[in-house]
Parts: sequence; structure tokens; C-alpha cells
Amino acid sequence: MKHLTIALFLVLITTSIRAQDEETTQIKLIFDNALTRQEAYHNLEYLCTEAPDRLVGSENSLKAIEYMKQYFNALGADSVYLQEFHTPAWKCDSSSVWIIPQSGKPVMLHTDALGPSPATPMEGIMAEVIEVKSLDEVEKLGKEVISGKIVFYNRKWNPAFIRTFEGYGDAVDQRARGPEKAAEYGAVAVIVRSVTNSTDHFPHTGNTHYSNNKIPAVAISTLDADLLSEQLQKEPKTTAKVYVDSEDIPETITYNLIAEIKGKEKPEEIIVVGGHIDSWFNTPGAHDDGAGVVMTSDVLRIFKELNINNKRTIRAVVYMDEELYQSGGKAYALMVKNNGEKHYLALEADAGAFTPRMFTINASEETVGRIAAFLPYLKPYGIDEIKAGWGGVDIGPLKELGVPLMAYGTDSQRYFDMHHSANDTFDKINLRELQLGCGCIATMIYLVDKYGVE
Amino acid sequence: MKHLTIALFLVLITTSIRAQDEETTQIKLIFDNALTRQEAYHNLEYLCTEAPDRLVGSENSLKAIEYMKQYFNALGADSVYLQEFHTPAWKCDSSSVWIIPQSGKPVMLHTDALGPSPATPMEGIMAEVIEVKSLDEVEKLGKEVISGKIVFYNRKWNPAFIRTFEGYGDAVDQRARGPEKAAEYGAVAVIVRSVTNSTDHFPHTGNTHYSNNKIPAVAISTLDADLLSEQLQKEPKTTAKVYVDSEDIPETITYNLIAEIKGKEKPEEIIVVGGHIDSWFNTPGAHDDGAGVVMTSDVLRIFKELNINNKRTIRAVVYMDEELYQSGGKAYALMVKNNGEKHYLALEADAGAFTPRMFTINASEETVGRIAAFLPYLKPYGIDEIKAGWGGVDIGPLKELGVPLMAYGTDSQRYFDMHHSANDTFDKINLRELQLGCGCIATMIYLVDKYGVE
Repeated sequence: MKHLTIALFLVLITTSIRAQDEETTQIKLIFDNALTRQEAYHNLEYLCTEAPDRLVGSENSLKAIEYMKQYFNALGADSVYLQEFHTPAWKCDSSSVWIIPQSGKPVMLHTDALGPSPATPMEGIMAEVIEVKSLDEVEKLGKEVISGKIVFYNRKWNPAFIRTFEGYGDAVDQRARGPEKAAEYGAVAVIVRSVTNSTDHFPHTGNTHYSNNKIPAVAISTLDADLLSEQLQKEPKTTAKVYVDSEDIPETITYNLIAEIKGKEKPEEIIVVGGHIDSWFNTPGAHDDGAGVVMTSDVLRIFKELNINNKRTIRAVVYMDEELYQSGGKAYALMVKNNGEKHYLALEADAGAFTPRMFTINASEETVGRIAAFLPYLKPYGIDEIKAGWGGVDIGPLKELGVPLMAYGTDSQRYFDMHHSANDTFDKINLRELQLGCGCIATMIYLVDKYGVE
Repeated sequence: MKHLTIALFLVLITTSIRAQDEETTQIKLIFDNALTRQEAYHNLEYLCTEAPDRLVGSENSLKAIEYMKQYFNALGADSVYLQEFHTPAWKCDSSSVWIIPQSGKPVMLHTDALGPSPATPMEGIMAEVIEVKSLDEVEKLGKEVISGKIVFYNRKWNPAFIRTFEGYGDAVDQRARGPEKAAEYGAVAVIVRSVTNSTDHFPHTGNTHYSNNKIPAVAISTLDADLLSEQLQKEPKTTAKVYVDSEDIPETITYNLIAEIKGKEKPEEIIVVGGHIDSWFNTPGAHDDGAGVVMTSDVLRIFKELNINNKRTIRAVVYMDEELYQSGGKAYALMVKNNGEKHYLALEADAGAFTPRMFTINASEETVGRIAAFLPYLKPYGIDEIKAGWGGVDIGPLKELGVPLMAYGTDSQRYFDMHHSANDTFDKINLRELQLGCGCIATMIYLVDKYGVE
């Protein structure tokens, strides 16, 4: 009996080791494929060079969706279709800021409007500039000082944060809520220092939240913010002229793109991966988030080419409009709810194509634990953490349907150098880092499908 | 008694927690300093733009040493001095490769000589080209086929390796030993596909080992290697012309640069950090290894500015000639031996200024264990592994004196895109990644000094 137990134990151990070896081999096949093929890289090159400035409502946003649709069809996905939905949108044709010094020539700054800034009159808005470092400062100065002025938010990015997303979180209130606050105190326009840790001439746009009173709002480059600040020290009553040519679009018809490989055992359980195809109007959107789209789309290609027998349906979603109104993610979750689809897990990639570092999970402790246990499989490929944390903007609305959410995380040091600016170009993409991302995401989905997360 | 034991236990725990909190605070101060100051970044800009092409024996190699000497003096190091030594050197003024097709015009390729390739005659060497994929293939083809020919090593980099240093190790024999092997079988010159995972027009040079029979050897860009290979498929008897204008320098006088902050308790025990100031003749040497020099030099600045009371002497060494004959590291170890200096530990940074990932240690198991225990302090700053492994080329000769060796390791994905080529420029350096490296190295040295490694 004792010998039998030992024998059984040995069989179990051996089986377990063999299973582990099999996984190691399968995962190596996934990465061999990801690193030797370059489909994701070439898809991203197309998006950046042939369909830049993909803000929702733009022609290029639809061109990009069409391109990815053809890609999914060509790789033989089981179904490829568009989810049509209606959303308000916004467009910006141009913007400018001029410093009008009391003596000397006007100086034009590197500027992009924030979305969805209202337009100024054709002749722009000219007013005295008041520099502040925070929303609190606007409150403290009060209407007496702020009213009729152009408020210039100029708090610098704090470089001491190690993870740059924390640095962003620390600085972004000036952009996201600054115009609303300034409007409340009677400002006529807002200029914001670009939310970036770079010192250069690129303005970084982004979303700003308005309540009823909308005033024009623009970002200027960090170098120009320093210039404007110096000018205000020299001449505290310096005026500036802000010009924005933008337009609200009450309703546009647009699409999420959906492609899937049917599950062989549980086709009704859907594992969804995706990124957002839209970018701001001023950028090729290479890292944000063309990269997320092509890496998550590559999961279907890898599964097809390696003939992986997925139990559950693997679905790639190319979301529209993460940047402006987050309407694509909301429309998608609504469809899931209305159709009563069962989503097993949702993964989003929206942190650029830098070297792989982590997965974060927004789910029950048990599910986090199950997924974190996959770490030994992914550590050789650069993933050093799998832990509770952020899910994603586009998949966020799935949370209330009880879907476990997961984000693919890359090394964050360079992300905000380019984020939301014309500097987010294809040449900033490293082939290997992008293709490793494809491998990491495909492997994670493979493990989730095979071993489950419950 | 029981209560006393518990009380003592609680005191110990509390003390230990307080010590840990103190360390966490001290280490945060180190990183705050590293990330808010930009001295290392500006030093590297100088080296790349004012003193590129710093091969041993060149004027710029001495200009670079002089610059760093002034830097150490300015920051108030306790002693700053040059270690003079004599070494053979080599220089290359130009090189070219032409494909001479049987029909059509000659085509010039993107070429750099390997070091220390001998010169060709002024008119170059013209001969039939034979393409091979390995040194073994040269052996198999034998003298009959190889003799009188130009051997073209064209085995591609295998992208499936995850750590690119392994990909490099897999491909580099063609460059390091290929010319010697081809010469043995009577070849008249060697052309090597650049050892890189990039597909571009940059030739990547590097060291090649010669025995007695030295034949000219050059690297061509990967795109040109593909072009030459295609040409050989079309016309198997294609000839090429190889031209190298180079010169052996029998002896040059050169220097390692040494700067130190004296230890307050054990000044006779020296912890040494360093990188190499020389670069290949064709490159600004930003990542290889200007970055290593400025990051390790920054340790002294950080210690001075934060008034860290180092027990042991912290010494920065700027090594000359890692690339060609590794004479600086040898000369340094010889001096250490002759002076009977006690080296407590040596750390080298020669893996570029990419995002921090690891430290590797070449020392006893016990020492590796002691240092690996520092991981929790460095994990928040991007270091995910501290383990046994590589030390470094320049500190290598200290091994026989029993010195524990350590290497600072960065994310390797992009390193070989630029390595040993004109593409290794300052604009490839990310400010934050470089300055995080300064913080990681300074922290490691701080912990080694404070807690010891024995």
C-alpha cells in the first residue's frame, strides 16, 4: 500500500512536471512566433503613417477601422463585424497662442487645443495672463483677480515619481479640471502647461471636463510654458491671444470592430482583448494606442497560426473613442448586457509598446491569486509582476457586469514623453518590444483560457 | 521572564522596522536626487557631442578623460588622479566595400572595419565572394574553395532569444573568430554581416581576434548583407572590392581616471564603480559606454550632495580601452595588486542606459545571497532581479584578486540596435532611464557599504 502510494505520488509528480514542460514548450512557440513575425509592427506602421489623427468622427478613424477589419478577415477569424453606435464628437482644425509683450514683437507658442474646447471668435481672445500652480490657487485668488483673465496653469511635472503614471496623476488635474475651475471664477480662456516630463516644443493635448460654462482651453509646450512664465516675471501684466478653431459635432455614426475565434468547448464564454483605435487629432498615436490595438489583435493571429485549441471564444475588440467621450467602451458594454453575452475576462492594452513589465488585475482576490500564479510562465519574457490594480478605460464599463478586468503594463519611463502629442510617432516603436508585447498578451490569454481564473 | 522575552522581541522588531523605514527614506532621497538632477545626462551629452569616436589612442579619448577629471574635481572628490599606462592601439581612417557585378554598375555598401583589421593595399583587395553561415562551413568547404576568396559571413541574428545578449552571443563568433578562421583556410579578406537585430543601413564594428595571419575584415549593414546575398544568388561568381585604411599603433600612452571619496571608518577598503570611456571609432558611444561612465561617476556626486557617511572608500574608475585590447582593466588590476590595495567589491556598468532591471554578481554563493537580500529596497525602482551572473570586462581581472564583481543590468531589447555603430547617439538616451540608473547604482553601493557583503 505504501509502495502504491509512493508510485501514485511519483506518477502525479511526473505528470505535473510533464504538464509544466508542455506549457513551457507551448509558450516558447508563442514567443518564437511573436518575435519572428512582424504583422503587428507592420499594422502599426500603417495606422501611424496612413491613418494618423484618428479622433472619433474623423475620416482616418474609419479608415483605420476598415484596415483592421481587412486584417482580421485575411487571418481567417471566425467572425468579423462592426458594432455601429452614435456619439457626439468634436473636431479641431487649428489653434494658436501669442504672447503680446508690452515691448517687442508678439511670440507664437507651440499649441494644441484641449478636447473638447469651444472655439474662440475668429479674432481670438486677448486678455491679461495670470499664472497659477493649482486649482486651489484659482480659488484663493477668487473672482476679483481671475475674472476676465486668461488663466495659465504652470505646475511642473514632478520627476521624483518612479512610475510615470503617478507623475501624470499628480499633474493632470490642471488639464482635466483646470479650465472648468477657471471658468467658474470668470476666466475667459485657459492655457495649460503640457502634462509631460519632457522638456521640448511638443504641446500635449488631452481631455478636459466642462460643466455648463465652457471657455477655450489649450496646452502649450513645456519650453513655451517656461518662456511665458519668464515673460510674466519681466512684465506681470503681459497679455496673450488665444485662438481655437474647433467645432462640436452633435452626433456622428461610428464603430467598434469585433473579431473572434470561436471556443471549441465553451464558445459561449468570451475572453475579450483590445485597445483603442482612436487617437488625438494631433498625433499618429503610435504608443497611444495604435500599439494596444495591433498587439491585442495579434492574439488572434498567433492562436490561428499555432492552431491553439481555445476552449473559450477569444474576441478582439478595436474600441473607438477612448480619448474624447469614452463612448466606444460604453457602447460595447451595453451591447454585451443587452445580448446577455457571458464575458469570462477582459484585457486591455493601453500603455504603449515599451518593454513588458506587468499585468494588473481588477477582480476578486481569488481571481487575482489565480492569475498571479501564472507569473513563473511569463517571468522569462520580461513580466516581473502580476498583481491587483488597474483594468482599463474601455473595459471599465464591463465591471458592473462582474467581468474580471486586466491591463497589460509596460515600462512607463518614456510613455509621457510622447503621450497625446505629435511626437507619438512610429519611429518611437521598437520592433522587439512591440512583438514581445504580442507574445505576453497571447500567453496570458492562452493561460487564462486553459487554466481558468475562478 | 516570558514577558521580558516578548518585550525584548518587540523592541527588536520595532528597531528593525525603524531601520527599514530609515533605509526606505534614505533610498528615496537618493532617487529624488538622481531624478531631479541632470548632471549625468549633461555629462553624457558632452561625451557624445564633443568627444565622439573615443577609441584608445585617439585625441577624443583623452579629451573625454580630461572632461571627466574636471567634473570629479568640481564635485569635490577627495582625490582625483590619472593612472598612466602604455598599450598598443589601432586606428581606422576609412573603409569601403564595393560589389562588382558581372553586369551593371558597382555598388558601394555601408561598411566599417573590424578592429584591429590590417589595411588593404591602396587599390583594395578584389576577389570572388563566397557566402557562408558559420565557421564550421568554412572548415567543411576547405582550402580548395576558400583560398583566394573573400569570405562573407551572413548568418542572421536569431530574434527568438528573449535576452538580446544571448542573441549576440549566438551570432558574434562570425565577427570575433570568423576572420581568423577564414585566414587559416587561405581567404584574402572577410566581410561580416553586422551583429545586430536591426534591419538598417548602419554597419556595426567590433573586436576580432587574430592569430598570426591577419587579413582585412569589415562589417557591412544588415540591409547590405541581404543585398550582397541576393547578388550572389543571381551571380554566384560575383566579386567584391574591400578597402581598409587602418594602422597599428605599437604603443600609445593613455590613462584610466580615478576619483574617490574616502571612507570614514575603513578607508583602506575600496568599493569601486566604473564604466569605460573609450568607444569604437565610428560612434558617439552613448549607450556603449558613455552611459556607464556617467552613471557610475554620478555615485560620487550623490554621496557628496547627500552627505552620506560611507564607511569604506568609494572609488569611481573611468576605464580606458575596453573595446580594443581591454588594456585599461588589466592595467588597473595590476596597479591594485602592486599597491596591495584591498578591494571590497567592484561594480561595472556597461549595458547602456535603458530602464533598470537587474544586478548580476560574480562572487561566492554567500556574497550573492547577501546582495540578493537587498532586492526589496530596489524593487520599487525597477530592479526585478539580483542574482549570480556576469561581472564585467573591465573589472574581470580583479577576479583573481578575490574581489566580488557585480554588473548593473538594464532592459536589453534595444541595446544591439545601436551597439558599436554610428547609431549609438545621445538622442537615444532617455533622461529618466539614465538618471534612474544613477539612483540604482548609488543605492546598491550605499547598501553594500552599509551592510557589507560577507
